[in-house]
Amino acid sequence: MTTPTRRELANAIRFLAIDAVDAAKSGHPGMPMGMADIAEVLWNDHLSHNPANPQWFNRDRFVLSNGHGSMLHYALLHLSGYDLPLEELKNFRQLHSKTAGHPERHETPGVETTTGPLGQGFANAVGFALAERLLAQHFNRPEFAIVDHRTWVFMGDGCLMEGISHEAASLAGTLGLGKLVAFWDDNRISIDGNTEGWFTDDTPARFEAYGWRVVRDVDGHDADAISRAIEAATAEDDKPVLVCCRTTIGFGSPNRAGKESSHGAPLGKDESDATRAALGWNHGPFEVPQALRDGWAAVEAGQARESKWTQLFDAYQAKYPDLAAEFLRRSNGTLPAGFEADADAFIAKLQSEGPTIASRKASQMAIEAFAPLLPELVGGSADLAHSNLTLWKGSKSAASTDANANYVYYGVREFGMSAIANGLALHGGLIPFDATFLVFSDYARNAVRMSALIPAHAIHVYTHDSIGLGEDGPTHQPVEHLASLRYIPNNDVWRPCDAVESAVAWKSAITRKDGPSCLIFSRQNLPHQARDAAQVDAIARGGYVLKDSVGTPEIILIATGSEVGLATQAAEQLGDNVRVVSMPSTDVFDRQDAAYRESVLPNAVRKRVAIEAGVTPFWRAYVGLDGAVIGIDSFGASAPADKLYAHFGITVEKIVEAAKAL
Amino acid sequence: MTTPTRRELANAIRFLAIDAVDAAKSGHPGMPMGMADIAEVLWNDHLSHNPANPQWFNRDRFVLSNGHGSMLHYALLHLSGYDLPLEELKNFRQLHSKTAGHPERHETPGVETTTGPLGQGFANAVGFALAERLLAQHFNRPEFAIVDHRTWVFMGDGCLMEGISHEAASLAGTLGLGKLVAFWDDNRISIDGNTEGWFTDDTPARFEAYGWRVVRDVDGHDADAISRAIEAATAEDDKPVLVCCRTTIGFGSPNRAGKESSHGAPLGKDESDATRAALGWNHGPFEVPQALRDGWAAVEAGQARESKWTQLFDAYQAKYPDLAAEFLRRSNGTLPAGFEADADAFIAKLQSEGPTIASRKASQMAIEAFAPLLPELVGGSADLAHSNLTLWKGSKSAASTDANANYVYYGVREFGMSAIANGLALHGGLIPFDATFLVFSDYARNAVRMSALIPAHAIHVYTHDSIGLGEDGPTHQPVEHLASLRYIPNNDVWRPCDAVESAVAWKSAITRKDGPSCLIFSRQNLPHQARDAAQVDAIARGGYVLKDSVGTPEIILIATGSEVGLATQAAEQLGDNVRVVSMPSTDVFDRQDAAYRESVLPNAVRKRVAIEAGVTPFWRAYVGLDGAVIGIDSFGASAPADKLYAHFGITVEKIVEAAKAL
Repeated sequence: MTTPTRRELANAIRFLAIDAVDAAKSGHPGMPMGMADIAEVLWNDHLSHNPANPQWFNRDRFVLSNGHGSMLHYALLHLSGYDLPLEELKNFRQLHSKTAGHPERHETPGVETTTGPLGQGFANAVGFALAERLLAQHFNRPEFAIVDHRTWVFMGDGCLMEGISHEAASLAGTLGLGKLVAFWDDNRISIDGNTEGWFTDDTPARFEAYGWRVVRDVDGHDADAISRAIEAATAEDDKPVLVCCRTTIGFGSPNRAGKESSHGAPLGKDESDATRAALGWNHGPFEVPQALRDGWAAVEAGQARESKWTQLFDAYQAKYPDLAAEFLRRSNGTLPAGFEADADAFIAKLQSEGPTIASRKASQMAIEAFAPLLPELVGGSADLAHSNLTLWKGSKSAASTDANANYVYYGVREFGMSAIANGLALHGGLIPFDATFLVFSDYARNAVRMSALIPAHAIHVYTHDSIGLGEDGPTHQPVEHLASLRYIPNNDVWRPCDAVESAVAWKSAITRKDGPSCLIFSRQNLPHQARDAAQVDAIARGGYVLKDSVGTPEIILIATGSEVGLATQAAEQLGDNVRVVSMPSTDVFDRQDAAYRESVLPNAVRKRVAIEAGVTPFWRAYVGLDGAVIGIDSFGASAPADKLYAHFGITVEKIVEAAKAL
Repeated sequence: MTTPTRRELANAIRFLAIDAVDAAKSGHPGMPMGMADIAEVLWNDHLSHNPANPQWFNRDRFVLSNGHGSMLHYALLHLSGYDLPLEELKNFRQLHSKTAGHPERHETPGVETTTGPLGQGFANAVGFALAERLLAQHFNRPEFAIVDHRTWVFMGDGCLMEGISHEAASLAGTLGLGKLVAFWDDNRISIDGNTEGWFTDDTPARFEAYGWRVVRDVDGHDADAISRAIEAATAEDDKPVLVCCRTTIGFGSPNRAGKESSHGAPLGKDESDATRAALGWNHGPFEVPQALRDGWAAVEAGQARESKWTQLFDAYQAKYPDLAAEFLRRSNGTLPAGFEADADAFIAKLQSEGPTIASRKASQMAIEAFAPLLPELVGGSADLAHSNLTLWKGSKSAASTDANANYVYYGVREFGMSAIANGLALHGGLIPFDATFLVFSDYARNAVRMSALIPAHAIHVYTHDSIGLGEDGPTHQPVEHLASLRYIPNNDVWRPCDAVESAVAWKSAITRKDGPSCLIFSRQNLPHQARDAAQVDAIARGGYVLKDSVGTPEIILIATGSEVGLATQAAEQLGDNVRVVSMPSTDVFDRQDAAYRESVLPNAVRKRVAIEAGVTPFWRAYVGLDGAVIGIDSFGASAPADKLYAHFGITVEKIVEAAKAL
C-alpha cells in the first residue's frame, strides 16, 4: 500500500467496527460505517488533542452523542494512539474491557463523557463549550489564550428528536457558544426505519431559529466537502454551528447500507465479506495495514501541540504567577487550601447563632459564604432563581463578558440544565450547581442518573421539597422523589433539618468529587436544633443522634428535614426513653462502618418510628416490619402547608401515637 | 351597564383572578390578566362546548398548558356556566375546594387535563387532537362527522422552553394535526425576568420548521385582531397552527404590568385598587355585574350545540346501528362484553402450553391476542418497535388515513410520547399504550407521574428491564427504576416472570381504568412456571404462592420477573420447608386485604429472601431488617447477560447461601 487515500483511512474505522461487533455478536455497526469519513477528516485534520495525554487541559473536546456508535470512537482512539490496544477492541462489550457497549468516561481514556441516552451528549457538549467560554473569560490575557479549544459533537436523528436537543441548542444559541460545532448525521434512518413517518423537521431552519449558523447539504462521504464544511464552521466564532452531513448508514454494506438493518446488529460473516469486497478491504478481522496506521498516528503531532501550549503557559506563569497558580489549582480539581476550615467555621457560627429559617434560605446563606472562597462555583436555576434562592451577591450572568461570570440563567429547561451542568463539571476547572423544584427533578432525572454514572461532580439543588410547599398543589408536591433520588447509585441525597445541616450538606457536596449530590431544601421555615460540637461533626456522617435517651433507648425516632422538628417535639412528649436520629443523608449514613451505624441505630432496638413527608415503604429499611412510618403514600393537595400536614397526619400527635402503639 | 364591551368581559376574568389570588394570599395573577382578552374571544365566539355537560363527547378540548394561570380557567368555567360556583373561586387554593393551585382534572368540571408541569399540557393537547383524528377516521361517515372538534391550547414561554414542546410539536407537525390550535402567550417575561437573557428563539420560524402554520404578530389585547387570527387559524385544517399573541403580563396593573413581579404573587390591596382604577372596574371583590354575567353565559348556546349534535348522532345511529353502538361503548369507556372471558381463556391456554420466551415476546403475544378484541387500543413506541415488540398483525400507522389506524411511530421522544398518550387516554374512546426501554422511563418520568395523578388510563410498556439486557451496558441497564416507578402513587407496576404473568399483567392494565400501569418486560427468555388454576387466578392479586412448602414455611423466597426462575431453582435445593412467592406487582399486592397478604407472607415467618435484579433496600418492606435481599445496588456493566448475573451475584447459589445464613 502506498500513501493511503482518505477513504482507506476511513475504512479502517469501518472494519474495526464491523469486526468488533461481529466478534461481540452485538453492537451497532451502521453509524460508524456512516460517519467514518466525517470522523476521519475531523480527527486527522482538525481535532486539537494529544493522544499521549488525554488529560491535557486545553485539548478539544470530542463528544459522541449518538453513543451507540461507540466503535467509531474506540476505533478513533485506538488508531490515533490513545491507550486503547487492539486487544480491547477485540473484547468489545465484554466484562472488564475498556470498550463498553456505550462509551464510558470512567473506563476509557479519551472518552470525555458517557453517552448512549440520546441527546445528553449534545447537552454535555454545550456544557463543555460554556466551560471553555467561562474559563477563557477568567484566565486568558492578551497574547495568552491559555484556554482556547473547540468542542465537537456527533449527533444523529435520535438526538435531534429528543426534547433535550431543543433545550440545549436553544440555550447555546442564546449564549452564542461559537466554539461548539455539531455534526448532524443526516442518514434519515432510525431504529423503526425511514424517519419520514415520524421526523420531518426542517432541522437546518430549526437551528437557525435558535441563532445557530448552519452549514447545509454536506456530502458526508466526500472528504473534500467535509473539509470545506469544517473550514466554514470554524471561520467565525460568533455562533454555534450545525454541520448537516448527508450520510448513508452502514455505508459500504451491499445489502444493508441505507437500511435500519445495519443499525443495531452484527453484519455477520457473509455481509461482512461482501462489504470487504465492495470497499476493497483485503484484510482479515482486526487487521489494519501499517500504512494506514501511519496515516492515523497522532501522538507526535499531539505532543507537539501540547508542548507549544506548555510553552505558552510557562510564559503566562512568568507574567501572571498568581493567576497561573489558580489555574493549576482549578484545573487539577483541588479546593482552596483553607476551604474546609472556613466552611467549618461558618457551620460552627450557624450552630451558635441558631437561625430559624427555610432551608432554601439556609442554602443561599451557605452559597453566600462559600462562593467567595470558590471562584470555580458556577450556579444556575431553571427560571426559579428567586424561589430556589440560588443567586448570591457575587453572581454574574454567564451571558455577560464579565471575567467572573458564574451564573447561568438556564430558562425553563431542567433536563438540558442538568446535562449542561454535567458538561461543566466534566470539563474541569468548574464546580457547577443547578436548581429547580424537587418535583421537577423528574424532568432532569436521567441527567441526574448520568451525573452519578459518569461520574460528574455536579450539585443539584432542589427546593420546595414536600407538601410543605402548600398551595401549588399535587403537581408541584414531591412525594416519591426523595426515595427515588436516593436509589440512584452513587448519588448523595441530603435533606437537612435546619441551617446547620444545610451548610454541612453544601460542604459535603463541594468536597465530594466522585459523584453528584442532590441538596433538598424546604420552602417553609425550619426550627434550629441544639447540638454539641461532636454532633455538629457527626452531621457529615449522614445520620446521627440528635437527642438521646437517658440510658439505652426504648424507642428511636428517625426523621429528616422538616420532620426532625416534629420528631424532637414528639420525643419530649414521649419521655426520657426516646432517641431522636436526624438522618439528612441515608446514602452517606449507609456508607459508614457497621460500628457507627450500630451506635446510632442499635439492632436490638426495634421500636422505631421514621418520619418523613414522603413515601413510607422506603423507611422500612430502617425501621423493619415491626416499626412504624409516618409519611404520605398518596399525592398531596392544594392548601396552606399547616393544613396539609394536619390533613395527611404528619403531626407530633401522630408520631406520639405511633410510638406508643409499638 | 349597557351591553358590555369585550374588554369589560375580559376584565371580569382579570378581577376574579386578582381577587381569588389576593384572598388565597398565593397564586399567579399575571398570566390571567395577560391572556384574558384572548380567552374572552376564544370562549365567547369560537369554543364549541356545553357548560351544562362537560362530558359531551364532541366538545372542543381546551387545555391550559401554562397551568399556573389556573384562575383564568376557573374564571372561564365559572362565568360560562360550568358547575363551579363563586364560592369555589373564593376558596381558591384551599383544602377540599374545586379550585386547586393548578387545574386538576379529577377535581374540577371542565378541566380536561391536569396541568402545571410545563409543556405537558401542550403535549396532552397533541394527544387530544390525535385522538380526534383517529376516532374521526374510524367512526365518521359521509354527512356524519360525529367526531369533529378542535383542540385549543394556551401556552407560555415556559412551555416553549421545555424540551417536551419540541417533541410534541415536531410529531404534531409530522402528523399534520390540523385541528390543533396553540396560542403562544408571548409576553417575554418568565420568573427570572425578561427572557432576552435566556430565551431568544425565533419561535415562529421554529414552528414553521416543524410544519406548523404560524399566525404571527397578533396583538393579544385587541379583540378584533384575536378574532381575525382565530379565523385565519381555522380557515384550513391541513396543519397545526401556532397563534403568536403579543401580550403584557399583569395587563392593567399600573406598577406590575410587564414585569415578573406580577407572575407569582398576589397584587395585594393597594395594587389591586390601583388596577381597578386603571381599568375602570368599579366593583368589589368577586363582584361581577349581571350584564357581564349575561355576556358570558354559555349554557344555552352549549345545550343547542349538543342538541344539534345529538340529532346528527341519532340519524347516524339509525343508518349505522352497529357503528353507533360501538361508538357509545367506546366513548363510555366500557370494554367489550366478552373481553374478560376471552382474556382468561388466552391466559389459561398459555398456562397449559407453557412457552419459555422473553416476557417482551409474551407481551407481544398478549397484544396480538387482545388487540383484535379492543379496537380502542392505540399502540406505539419511541422508535423501538422491534425491540419493545409493540407491533402486531393489526397495526396500522396513525400517520395513515386508514380507518383502523392504531399505531403511533412516536420517534425518539419518550416524554412527549407519554404525555401524548395521556391526552389520548383522557380524550375518551381510546386506550393507549406506549413503549421504550425501562431505563428511558426516566426521560418520561413526570408524564408517568401525571398519568397517575390526573389519572389517565395509559399503559406504559418498558422492556429491557435489568442487567439482563446485557452488552448495552450501564447507560441502558435499569437498577433503581422498578422501585422508583412503584413509589409513584396510583401507579401499578408489573414485572411478570413468564408468559402467563405477562398476559395477566396486560389484562390488569386494560381493565384498570382509574390510573396507569407500567408493564415491565425482559429482553431475555424466562422459563415457564407451573401453576394450578387457583394460582393462575391469584396472579391478578399482585403476589401469590407459586410453590409452597410442605406445612408451615420456614423460609420464604420472594421474587419478581426474571428472578422467579432463580428462586424456584433455589427452593428445590433448599428443601421442602421453603415457599416461593411470585410478586409481579407489589402495588397490587399491597392493596389486597390483610388476610390475603398474611396468607402469602405470614407475619411470623421472618426468614425471608427477596430476589430482584434491582436496588435492594426497596425489598426491606417485605423482608424486614432480619431478612436478606439479593439484588444490585451499583450500576451495571457491559457484558453478556449470564456473565453479568454471575458477576453481580444474582444466582441460585447466592440465594441458597443467603437463605441458609438467616
